[in-house]
Formats: sequence, structure tokens, C-alpha cells
Amino acid sequence: MIAVDEARARILADLQATAGEVVPLAEAWNRVTAAPIRARLAQPPQDVSAMDGYALRAADGALGAKLRVVGSAPAGHPWVGVVGAGEALRIFTGSIVPQGADSILLQEDATRTCDLVEVREAVTAGRFIRRAGQDFNSGDILIPANKLLNARDIGLAAAANHPWVEVHRRPRVAILATGDEIALPGEPIPQGGIVSSNSHALAALVRACGGDPVVLPVAADTKAALIAAARGVAGMDLLVTTGGASVGEHDLVQSALGEAGLTVDFWQIAMRPGKPLMFGRLGPVPMVGLPGNPVSSLVCAILFLLPAIRCLSGLPAAAPPTTTARLGAAVGANDRRADHLRATFDTATQTVTPFPRQDSALLRLMASADALVLRPANAPALPEGSEVPIIRLDTLGL
Amino acid sequence: MIAVDEARARILADLQATAGEVVPLAEAWNRVTAAPIRARLAQPPQDVSAMDGYALRAADGALGAKLRVVGSAPAGHPWVGVVGAGEALRIFTGSIVPQGADSILLQEDATRTCDLVEVREAVTAGRFIRRAGQDFNSGDILIPANKLLNARDIGLAAAANHPWVEVHRRPRVAILATGDEIALPGEPIPQGGIVSSNSHALAALVRACGGDPVVLPVAADTKAALIAAARGVAGMDLLVTTGGASVGEHDLVQSALGEAGLTVDFWQIAMRPGKPLMFGRLGPVPMVGLPGNPVSSLVCAILFLLPAIRCLSGLPAAAPPTTTARLGAAVGANDRRADHLRATFDTATQTVTPFPRQDSALLRLMASADALVLRPANAPALPEGSEVPIIRLDTLGL
Repeated sequence: MIAVDEARARILADLQATAGEVVPLAEAWNRVTAAPIRARLAQPPQDVSAMDGYALRAADGALGAKLRVVGSAPAGHPWVGVVGAGEALRIFTGSIVPQGADSILLQEDATRTCDLVEVREAVTAGRFIRRAGQDFNSGDILIPANKLLNARDIGLAAAANHPWVEVHRRPRVAILATGDEIALPGEPIPQGGIVSSNSHALAALVRACGGDPVVLPVAADTKAALIAAARGVAGMDLLVTTGGASVGEHDLVQSALGEAGLTVDFWQIAMRPGKPLMFGRLGPVPMVGLPGNPVSSLVCAILFLLPAIRCLSGLPAAAPPTTTARLGAAVGANDRRADHLRATFDTATQTVTPFPRQDSALLRLMASADALVLRPANAPALPEGSEVPIIRLDTLGL
Repeated sequence: MIAVDEARARILADLQATAGEVVPLAEAWNRVTAAPIRARLAQPPQDVSAMDGYALRAADGALGAKLRVVGSAPAGHPWVGVVGAGEALRIFTGSIVPQGADSILLQEDATRTCDLVEVREAVTAGRFIRRAGQDFNSGDILIPANKLLNARDIGLAAAANHPWVEVHRRPRVAILATGDEIALPGEPIPQGGIVSSNSHALAALVRACGGDPVVLPVAADTKAALIAAARGVAGMDLLVTTGGASVGEHDLVQSALGEAGLTVDFWQIAMRPGKPLMFGRLGPVPMVGLPGNPVSSLVCAILFLLPAIRCLSGLPAAAPPTTTARLGAAVGANDRRADHLRATFDTATQTVTPFPRQDSALLRLMASADALVLRPANAPALPEGSEVPIIRLDTLGL
């Protein structure tokens, strides 16, 4: 058996980020940059007023001074001219500070009478002026490569004058469920059959991780069907199989795909739920073989598939994000398999409470979990209130 | 001035969830259920084996017993017949337990010789059998209404045999930026103009919150342009304006839209950054007017727009999700305006450190923040290491 971390490191070491593609800025949210985004202009482009008021010379801004208002410069309508001695220009937040002026008299500190304005609070040179380039200068790298773009990044890229953004292509992840017993939801269910849930849960997980899922037709348990399915994998960035990863006699996947060009490592991973995992390549396409049990399949997908898809997307190779929480109930000592306890998480108290039942046959219970409590191999028993690492599922869309 | 919580409560009280629509299960991830999802079958549908092995009568399963193997039942190929005394059926994980049998002999506890199998570990009646309906029964509510569907929910809905799901329609959120100075990214920038960033940041935020953004053409600072823009709002679930929310003389939004049917509350909110907020209705369409400053606009969007879109999506009315972290630096006492400090967050140490500069003119700094530290009105100074509530921006795609 190998450890979870080692298995993940081996998978990630074998993956390369997808190539770049150009997308409109409006489609770039939640995508990963393939190149740095540099400012194409300075922000502000020139010195601008930070407030509504009057632009004037500091020397003219003593308390009680009266200045002649020579014009008005709403934002977007710069005033052409020079503010001379004894003069002031009506100005607004974001307006360019006119030549000659070096100070701003705030609107609330001014009394206007016809074309005269009286200073009610002495001005300070330079105050309430945002200097050109104060936010960024032309050429500055604003967003590095390999960064997941959030809403603020989109705003920043817009402000930097980018209508297009170069991002990594979303990894195309083929999902292949195998088994004669599997029917698609809503279709006739054969005697002894079950409705396919893994493919659909995994497709959603692929989306949640930033990939494009391609759900292949369910392959029957025959060599011919599996070899035919293998043809659907051309051009994919990753193949995920579900079922067929254990060594039972009806697990044809490994032998059948072997004829289709599969080179595979078969791993026993020291973890629960889940244990058998295949990793290899079908021709040039990396492949992860998940267990057929829906709960094991999901836990393995969270531990291995999420990091794999993120890595393919151009994000740094890393384990799923963890945080810490306090145990709402004691947990027993662990054996040599790392455990991933399905648990509720109370956000108000930051308390995580494992379900009393950890049966991997209970998909409904898995769906009602908020978090996985990570129990390392051979971890000692812990009392209620202990701090433990958790993976929060609710915030990841998993 | 009114408090942040009061403003949010007033907005949310005025919103109704969108109606339902039917989407394929494969498109239902990250959508909000509009009706409960009930199981259409039991899971497992019949008693099934939890392991690979042999099904037999418990009475026959004593250590050393030899049984005649009468057949094999791979998953999906149930065996028709009754297991009699002295007989065993080869069985696999998920196979239906045949009539007559009530126990499973594990594969690793069995020695097979031709058509005989020897019991190497006495069986226990009922062990390794998953009972029909153990996960769920037909008719059980598996997922309630008004729940955001994660990947596990999609798997559960599939297992419950749903090819279609009824979800709330994604709220359509119109975004209207106003101002003569605004150019779209990549387009010619007039003298004194700036590139529009608010609309694009807000559109991405709308997506992050589960809405469909509709970016309206930028409206010039004329009454006619604003009235024309108001026509684009028909059929929307929410209108968001940016700019024009303060009371300067170039803020036409309120007066112009008044002629187009706007009824509006204008609020001064006791918060920083951001302060002026409009809320009302343009005809039947609820409207939120955000400040024009990009940083203020984003902070207000996080505090008010995120909850509004979630509420329109069918999720419960609630503040943005907060968590707690330890301060990496002391913070000063707060005045009567609640503060929202842009900060870095270190996941390893769960430490949040506000930027020394909190200038709302710095979009780049806002984009580099991981979290907002929530400082209530009149909060006392806090030393380094104090626990404070934060909104994590990185995990929300904001």
C-alpha cells in the first residue's frame, strides 16, 4: 500500500497544464491565466481629483480667500486651459486636475456665489489629488500567469484595458463508467441493474474543479465494448474510469484497455473509503481509475481528481484545500489506512462532527456531509474539542 | 445613516425567488432546487452482497464445510433460482442475494476446487448483505427545495433516477454603468476618459453568485440616454447601476430614471468603503445602485448584491458567509462606520493581516486581497492575535 500523499504526488508529477486559448474578458471569470496580464495604461492616467470641489493653486487657498471660477470639468470632460492666480476650476471625483492647479478645495469647504468661490477651510497642496499611476503604471504585471481569475481580477484586467485574456484551455475530462448493471437515469433499468450515479457526480465534480466533462457511453463488461470506448478518448486531457479498478474476475478494464494501449500502475492506497486506484496512460492520455463504489469514488475524486484537474488547468500542483476545525465528538485511533470521515460542519462554532456511521454504501449520508475529517494513518484517538484538518466540501461545490 | 445589516435586511425583504425551470441533470450542478428531489426507487433495490464471495445458507457456513457451487451472479446478471441446502452461489459486490441464501462467505475466506467451495471462516447470517432500501427508500425526500446542488447531490439525484431536475431560473441581473468618461476595454479612450471596470467586475461577481449578467451599453450622462437604458431592463430580475449614487450635480441617474418609473430609497450606509446606496424599483424590477468607485462598488456588491442574487436564486436570505481568523497586526478603534479592511489571509496559520493602505482608489490592492476583515461600527482597537470575523473572497470566486 502507498500513502495518499505519495499517490497524489505521482499523479501530479505526470501531468502538464493545457495550452493557452484566447477568451473574451466577459468569459474569463474562474479561468486560469496562461500569461501575465500587464497594464496597458496608467491608472489614473493623469493626476485626478479624489473629491468633488474646486482645483486651484495652493498659494490661493488660504482661509477666506475668494477665487474666480473659470469653468467646470465634469469627469470625462477635461477642461482645456491653465488655472491662473486667483482662479479656481469646478471639478469632480475623477476629473483631471488642470494645468496650473496643485490643490483641491472640497465642495463642503467652499461657498459659491455666482462665479466666485470662497475658501472656508485652507487647502493643503497635493491633498485630495490622486497621482497618475498611483494604482498602477503601464507595463506593470497586474495578474501573474497561472492564477485563477476572480471577479476582482476581471475588474482589474478591464481597468488595464484588456478586452481579451489568454487562459489555459479547460481540461477535457472523459468519464467512462463500466458495467452491465448500469442504466442511465430515466432509462429502463434491467433486472438486477442500478442507475448510474458515479458518472454524473464525477461530471459535476469536474465542472466544480474547472474542467469540461465528457461523459462517454457506459461500456458493457466485454472486451469489445471497452476497446470501442477507448476510441472515444482521443483528444482528451484526462480519462477517468469508475469501476473495474479492483482485481475481481469481472474487472476487465485493465486487461481490455491493455490491448488499446493502456500502460498502468495499479495501486493499493492506504486510505478509507477507497483503496484500489489505477493510474496510467491510455496512449498519450493520462488515466485515473476510480473505485466503483459511489462514496469511495467521490472521496478518491476529491483527493486525487480535484488536484489533477487543477494541475491540468495551469494551477500549482497541490492537495485539496484544507482548514482546521474542532471535533464535536471524540474519534478513535486509526489503523494504517488514512481515514476520511464524513462529517457535518457548523460554521458558527467551527465544529466538525463525524457521522456515527461511516458506511461507504451510504451515498445519501455522503451527500449530506459538509466536510471530510482527515485522519492520518496510525493517528491516535482524539477527544472532543481537538483540532483536526478538514476538507470543506460545501464551499468547493463538491 | 443606516447600518449594513439593516440595509441588507431591507433589500432582501423586498426580493422573491425566481420561478422554476426544468434542466437536464447534467446541467444542474451549482443550481438551486425549486422542488424537493424524492427517490424514485429504493437503493439498493433488493438485498445485495457487499463483497465478492459466495451466497449460502448460514446453517451451511460452518468452518470446514464444503458446498456445491450452483452458478455465478455477476453484478447486473441476477441468478434465477433458489440456493438450497449444501449449495453456494458465486456472487460479487452489488449482486442480488439469491433466494434461499442469507449469508455471504467472503472470497478470501473460501477455497474453490472445481465446483466445490470450502468454508475457511464460519459465516454470520446477514453479514456483508446490504439490505434493500438501506441507503434510501422510494419516496424519501433526498434533497430539499432551495438547496444549492453540489457534485454529491447530482450523484444522489442520479442514483434516485432523475434525468431532469426542477431548479430556480438563474436570476438575470442587468448591469448599467453610467458616465461620459467610460470606455469599454480595447475601445478608443476619449481624452480624460477611463476604461470601464465596474461592469465587468460586477458581471463576474453575478456569475460567481449564480446569476446571469446582462451588461447594458454604457449610458452617457444625459437624461435621454438613461431613459433609453431603462428600456433594456424589462424582464430582468434585478438592475444594478454603478455610479450616479452620490448626490453630486452630475449624478443624473435618480432624476432621469424617476421619469422612467423609478421609485427609490436613497440610503447613507454607515460603512467604509462605500456609503451611498440606492435601492428601489424601476417599474417592477428591483434595483440596487452601487457607488461608482471600483473598490467601493465591489465591497458593496459583496455585502448586498451577493445576498440579493442568492435570495433571488431561491437560497435563504442571509449575509455573505463569514468565518473567523486571527489578526496578524493590530487594528485601531473604529468610528461609527463599519469598516471592511482589505487583507491577506494565510491559510496555514489562519491569520488575516489588513493592508497598511486602505485607500479605496487602489483597485490593484483590492484585487490582491484574500479577505475582508469586518470591523463593526464603534469597534474598539484590537491587538495582534485577536479573533475577528472575515469574509474570504478567494473561496467565493469574488
